[in-house]
This record gives sequence, structure tokens and C-alpha cells, in this order.
Amino acid sequence: MAAPLPPGSTIGVLGGGQLGRMLSQAASRLGFNVVILDPEENSPAGRVSQGQVVAAYDDATALTVLGKVAQVVTFEFENVPASSIERLAEAGALVAPGPRALAVAQDRVEEKTFLNSVGATTVDFAPVDSLDDLLAGLEQLGTPALLKTRRDGYDGKGQVWIRSAEMAADAWSAIGEKPAILEARAAFIRELSVICARGRDGAVAVYPLGENIHSGGVLKTTLAPAKVDAATETRAREIATAILNGLDYVGVLGVELFDLGNGKLLVNEIAPRVHNTGHWTQDGCVCDQFEQHIRAIAGWPLGPTEAHARVEMTNLLGDEVEQWRTLAAEADVRLHLYGKAEARPGRKMAHVNRVRVL
Amino acid sequence: MAAPLPPGSTIGVLGGGQLGRMLSQAASRLGFNVVILDPEENSPAGRVSQGQVVAAYDDATALTVLGKVAQVVTFEFENVPASSIERLAEAGALVAPGPRALAVAQDRVEEKTFLNSVGATTVDFAPVDSLDDLLAGLEQLGTPALLKTRRDGYDGKGQVWIRSAEMAADAWSAIGEKPAILEARAAFIRELSVICARGRDGAVAVYPLGENIHSGGVLKTTLAPAKVDAATETRAREIATAILNGLDYVGVLGVELFDLGNGKLLVNEIAPRVHNTGHWTQDGCVCDQFEQHIRAIAGWPLGPTEAHARVEMTNLLGDEVEQWRTLAAEADVRLHLYGKAEARPGRKMAHVNRVRVL
Repeated sequence: MAAPLPPGSTIGVLGGGQLGRMLSQAASRLGFNVVILDPEENSPAGRVSQGQVVAAYDDATALTVLGKVAQVVTFEFENVPASSIERLAEAGALVAPGPRALAVAQDRVEEKTFLNSVGATTVDFAPVDSLDDLLAGLEQLGTPALLKTRRDGYDGKGQVWIRSAEMAADAWSAIGEKPAILEARAAFIRELSVICARGRDGAVAVYPLGENIHSGGVLKTTLAPAKVDAATETRAREIATAILNGLDYVGVLGVELFDLGNGKLLVNEIAPRVHNTGHWTQDGCVCDQFEQHIRAIAGWPLGPTEAHARVEMTNLLGDEVEQWRTLAAEADVRLHLYGKAEARPGRKMAHVNRVRVL
Repeated sequence: MAAPLPPGSTIGVLGGGQLGRMLSQAASRLGFNVVILDPEENSPAGRVSQGQVVAAYDDATALTVLGKVAQVVTFEFENVPASSIERLAEAGALVAPGPRALAVAQDRVEEKTFLNSVGATTVDFAPVDSLDDLLAGLEQLGTPALLKTRRDGYDGKGQVWIRSAEMAADAWSAIGEKPAILEARAAFIRELSVICARGRDGAVAVYPLGENIHSGGVLKTTLAPAKVDAATETRAREIATAILNGLDYVGVLGVELFDLGNGKLLVNEIAPRVHNTGHWTQDGCVCDQFEQHIRAIAGWPLGPTEAHARVEMTNLLGDEVEQWRTLAAEADVRLHLYGKAEARPGRKMAHVNRVRVL
């Protein structure tokens, strides 16, 4: 195991959006310098970092430069090409999380197969590579069922609900006839998530659960700590720990859960990075998910995860960001704005944490 | 009064040290872009900001550029030349705090005269422009008395205690025969400070008091909220409010106090900026002094000042910063490192907040 990375070292981050920005801010509090790689000039993260390499995520020269400048490199999104990770490692940087976590998170069939293998149960599913596969899958799983591309797609994109076998051909065409996965519907009563972390020494830290409310496939609100019984809390911790250890993971990981009631949980999906449903930790915990991720990848001891406040986190999408004027005057509201110039419809512009001290 | 400055605007900061760095981090959380002016390239604040102008603080071109790029300009130190403020204003930027606060804080005779004029009592004092003045002052104030240069000097520099009239000539020579102030000794039992803020609308916000422990003229520790009786708390709030209103102040201001007991307080000095004795607010309050300053100068509503935790803030000077290894493992310790490359003896490298949730 590498020695803890000393302050004054440089951390590289692939991705210059709001997650990269908040990672950079956390890293600088710990005395690190941060360099961002993002194709968009003057990105939200680049503007609060020592530097930004403006290049594509698979640009060989850029990756070599970043891998030489930075002692550790991490990322704000999971669709990092495997070849980019190799290039960074060749240039001498530690990369965390590692290639195994990325490979698992990039392919929904791999992901569900892995999850079930470590006892983190998911809905039933079937790989789909043809219309015939899809019809067979519908036979096996029943309807309604959810067809998703195996790779890419987020916030509800690249997926379609199939309510009857007659819809199969249209659905197959709608997702572009790409390699896919068919998922049975989960009879869940609510969506939960758990943010967890694992250090280079194998230590695991798990934050209290959040309850999530989506709207149009996009996260709207997280309430945390969620009101859950002890069995559910325990089960969520078991699941988080099994996933982290199963991946030999280093860093923060987000686990989305379906709550079936009676302490029964299914894993919906995992994200090998800091996660929107963990933003509440900024104002609810003394060590938030961003600092936790930096601590983990730098080989530092993990920070505490207890909540000292109950938080309602709400995303501000598109021109909802204009609400800053009224929100700034509310004493229990903490504003987190991402510095994005253009408030395109649906774009994540900011979030607010409504804080009630426990 | 100007309208609140919208997110996406640019804030300029004179000074790229740790105070500028933490101001920049707070500003970026609110969606502002930050440009630093500092003669040292790649300064601690510059490294977490959108840009840095590398130039002297009185460089006319640099000030004009900064004043055009930034809508509001502030500073991390009080010795900003008055001509620089004029130049920034000419270029179109609002400057906060304003020239009156700076003029008062830059001259110890002006400062004490102002303070007493608004009922914020100080020790007795005498202006000293010659050895004759000094001897007359010692006659008037008695010994021991403290001789300080009227301008510049901080952390105990540019000052000398005079224990008897025979020491006068040596003392006068020791401070370079510069315009000076002679101060009577205060019979204080401890040093307190109060961090306060005033918005563009005249609203005033006052944080709980801190108790300060100095070592060799440099702040070592602040304990906050300090254990004080109601009369002391009330008197400190009166003093803070009188100073803020008397200066028509905009921004955060630090007030150092001598506690004489029985609710009696004298003002030692004021700093027209965020203040080392206010660093505890980062982990003790939901809106820390840095965000508060940005809110004030941007014309936003002030944030809440209640403490939700008791904090012991300790400065790490010089190679004490090496303690990060052990401190990082303590669950109640929040680390704040400044990213300074060279740990020169006595240099402020970092601070830690030891947090006990109330």
C-alpha cells in the first residue's frame, strides 16, 4: 500500500462539472493542488482548481501529461474509457477507483451479475442482444419490464418501459438495437441510497441512508438521514460493505436501493464516484462525501460519517437556479451553486441543503 | 444601494494568502468567479481561483484590469494603499469594505480616536512623533506602556514595551523613530474577540465571542463560543454594532477585546477583514465568516451566526503542519491546510478545528 499522499501533492480529476468542482474544493481544504481534465474550456471545476487540461477524455497526450503532473487521478463520471485509465497508470499516477469498478459500473449486465455474486441482490434480469432475446426475456420476466442499453445512458435516458410483448419491436428500435438488459419491475415502496467509502487500507465507512425522490428520471430531492428501521439500516450497511470489498474499492461509491419493506432491499445501481444523493453530507456531516473521497484516494484515514443535522437536499434544474434570490434569505438554507453560465432546461445548476440541526 | 450581485459575477480579492484562499472557496460555493491580485505567482488563493493577476498591490494597470473584470473587489489585509482603492473604483468596481474603514484601521491613532468616539472604549493613549512626545506620554500614562508604530506592524512586530522612562530613548530608536502611539497597559484577565458583519442594507450580524490565546505575539488558539456572562456578551455586541455603523461598514470585521471582568471590555484593535480568530466558524456555524463576508460585499442577505458546535481552533505554524498525519486520524478534528509550499518558521501553514457538537 502506498504511503498517504502529503499535502502539496497534486490530484487529477477527469471531468470538470459540479462533482469535479466540489471534489476540487474538498481537496484544496486538505492542502492538495488539483488539475482538471475536461474538453470544455473554463469548466466549473477548472475555475476553482490550479489548472485544467482542455482535451478529450481519451486524448493520449493529455492523459500522459495529467498522469505525470498528478500523483493520484480520479473521476467524476463512470464512463471513463479503460484505455484512459491504462494511460494514466503508465504515466505514473495512481488511479482510484480502479479499472475493475469502472468495468462493472459501465455495463449493466456485468453490474447486476457482480452485485448478485456478492449477495447484493437486484431485480431479475436478462441480457438482450436481439429482438429474439428480448421476447424470450419478456416471457421469463413478465411485463411490465424495463429495457435499458447495457452501456451509457443516465437520468432516464436510453431506457424504455415495455408493458406488453407487442411493444417489444418498437422498444428494441427505440434504444437503437444496441446490446441491452431487460429488468423485471421491482415492487418497491420507495427509493433509498447509501453513500459509502473504502480506504486504501480496506477500512469501510458508511453514511446514514438517504430517501430519494425523482421526477422525470432526474433526482429532485434527498431526505437524510432517512427514517428507516434498524433492519433496513443494517441490511444497507451489509450491502455497501459487500460491494466495496467485492470490488477491492478505493474511494466513495453511491448505491441506489429499492426499499421493498420489511428490511428487504434490492440494489438498483451503483455509481463508482461521489453521488448526487450524497450532497446532503456537505451540511449534515462534519466530513462530507467529497472530502471522504479525497481522503480515501489519497490513502488518508477515512473521516467520520455521523449526521449532526437532518437535511433536505433539492436540486435546482435549469432556470430554477434563479430562486437563489429568495433562497439566500432563508436562514436554514445552504446554497451550493455550480458556476455554470448557461441555465439550459433540466441542467443541474445548483443544489440547496435545508438544514435542521439534530 | 446596488442590487445583489448575481452568481456568475466576478469578485476580485487583493491578497493571495490563506484568507484570500478561504474567501475564494466560499465565493465559489455561491457561484461566483474569483480573481486574485497578488505579487507572488501561483499563490495559495490563486490556485483555487479562476485567475490571478500577478502584480504589486499598487500597480496601476493591474488594478485597472481587476476593477474592470470584477464587479466587487475586497481584500485580505488592511494595508491596502488608498490610491489602489481609488483606482479600482475608477475602473468600475464596487470596493468593500470602503476607504474610511481602511484609513481608520491603518493608523493606530486614528483607530483609537474613532473607537472612543463611538463608545468603543480603548486603553488611554498618546500620539508620539518625537522623543519629547514619548517622555510626555510616559508621564501621562505611567509605566509599563506599549510603544507601537502608528502604521504597519502585526503579530507583535513594530512594538516595544517600556518599563521605565530610562528605556524611552532606546524604545524610540527600536521602532525606527517613526510616527507612533503610546498605549497604557490594560489590566485584562483574558483576550476575547468578536467577528461581526454588516450588509449593504445596514443589517448587522454578530457571531458568538471567541477566547484567544497568543504565544509570542501570534494567535495560537481560539475557543468558541467563549464562556462569558450575559453582560459581557451584550457589551461585545454593542461595541461591534457601534463600530460597524460608525464606519458605515460593509463586510466582515474582527474586533479584538480585552476582558477586564465584570462585563467591562476594552477594544484592543480592529481588522477590516475576515480574521484568524473567526476560523472556528467554519466548523461551528452553518454560515462561516468567509461566506458571510462574500454575502455582505455582494449585497446578499447576511447568513445566520448561531453556533451549533463548540470549537477549539489551533494554528499550525511552520513545521507544525507536519502533524497532519496524526491529526487526519482524529475524528473530531477538521483540517484546513493552506497549500503553502515552504514551511518557514512561524509561518501560518494551516489550522485545525476541534469540534464538539453542542
